[in-house]
Amino acid sequence: MATQGHTLKAFDEDLDRLRALISEMGGLAEHAIIEAMRCLATRDLDGAHRVIEDDKKIDALEIETEKRVIRLIALRAPMAGDLRDVVAALKISGVVERIGDYAKNVAKRVPLLEDAGKIEPLSLLPEMARIATQMVHDVLNAFVNRDAEAALKVCQRDKAVDDFYDSIFRTLLTHMMENPHTIGQAAHLLFVAKNLERVGDHATNIAEMVYYAATGQHMEQRPKGGEGLALEA
Amino acid sequence: MATQGHTLKAFDEDLDRLRALISEMGGLAEHAIIEAMRCLATRDLDGAHRVIEDDKKIDALEIETEKRVIRLIALRAPMAGDLRDVVAALKISGVVERIGDYAKNVAKRVPLLEDAGKIEPLSLLPEMARIATQMVHDVLNAFVNRDAEAALKVCQRDKAVDDFYDSIFRTLLTHMMENPHTIGQAAHLLFVAKNLERVGDHATNIAEMVYYAATGQHMEQRPKGGEGLALEA
Repeated sequence: MATQGHTLKAFDEDLDRLRALISEMGGLAEHAIIEAMRCLATRDLDGAHRVIEDDKKIDALEIETEKRVIRLIALRAPMAGDLRDVVAALKISGVVERIGDYAKNVAKRVPLLEDAGKIEPLSLLPEMARIATQMVHDVLNAFVNRDAEAALKVCQRDKAVDDFYDSIFRTLLTHMMENPHTIGQAAHLLFVAKNLERVGDHATNIAEMVYYAATGQHMEQRPKGGEGLALEA
Repeated sequence: MATQGHTLKAFDEDLDRLRALISEMGGLAEHAIIEAMRCLATRDLDGAHRVIEDDKKIDALEIETEKRVIRLIALRAPMAGDLRDVVAALKISGVVERIGDYAKNVAKRVPLLEDAGKIEPLSLLPEMARIATQMVHDVLNAFVNRDAEAALKVCQRDKAVDDFYDSIFRTLLTHMMENPHTIGQAAHLLFVAKNLERVGDHATNIAEMVYYAATGQHMEQRPKGGEGLALEA
């Protein structure tokens, strides 16, 4: 019994360390989104370059997570629910890595957006980014705390992000029609908005995984909001 | 020895079945892209609806893959290289699921594109789709056959998809400027092109995983082509 207690404790400690690592990744991804949006608003090319470079840290942490998952499975041979938790951790780290990619993607557009300050929907983007980033923050807390209720609340906020996206999409199209000379810039902003919308979707995906891991039940299918513009890819 | 031989054989059989399942998912995802593009070109709303519905099959196969991975690890306790192969299979099935989402996303835009036939870049999209779909097809064959060389070749073709994307992006912007009344349609086509570009990226990601699983080496970093428009998210 003592041995098994020891093994279980070791497994729990390993899993906690894995969660901490993913939480660290999440912190970097959140920071990357906030920084990328700041660089976009202030035309900070050096800052944007740093966001792009720093994404490598997130990628490295994903590789580290995978290595630890493989080692943990090999060493501890977790069964049933424990094994599901480990696999969930692996999948979640993959999603966080993609959230980092979206931030990097926004940063890459900074040099392409010379006069974006003059494009009105830019004023809606920071608030959209704030909500999406907060979703990422909260869902990773829910993951660390195995909190299904908190995960559910994160999902409910995705509608707000989708609504922002629909609104920005429409406003940008109108802006394009009225100012054909800014069409290039506006097209890049369309993709920035799309990236933020995807961040919200990914936070929702993580929330569904956290909910399932914590309760053993799949979350009920949430309806997709908007007018079909917040498409899922 | 007989027992271990038996166990190894059982593991290999399980892994082969897992690969076959992922290959089946890949076949559905390929078909979904081709169908979605056909529906876009012919304005086939019913067909587009079927593509959207059929994506559930791909999602279900991903869940099935995850279940089998968990069962396989629990039953066979694979070590080292074998465990890496199983984890790679899990990750690849996640990527194939996302490729399916891109096809669904294209299909969802079909009802929004009333007069897309009049927009010139639409004529470039089918060829771009053909290359991206072929990459998906070939990389899953490389996965099933553990063929690192074939995986490498798939990566080399991503440049062509990126070049198509850059070209379509520019042509669509020009079209928007010259025909402001079609800006809405053209914006949707921008996203269709982006989705196809992402399919190419995801095929490349799978190729990197296949290469690593087959050789134990990471593929050399490929340079991103184009003029910074084929951004990675």
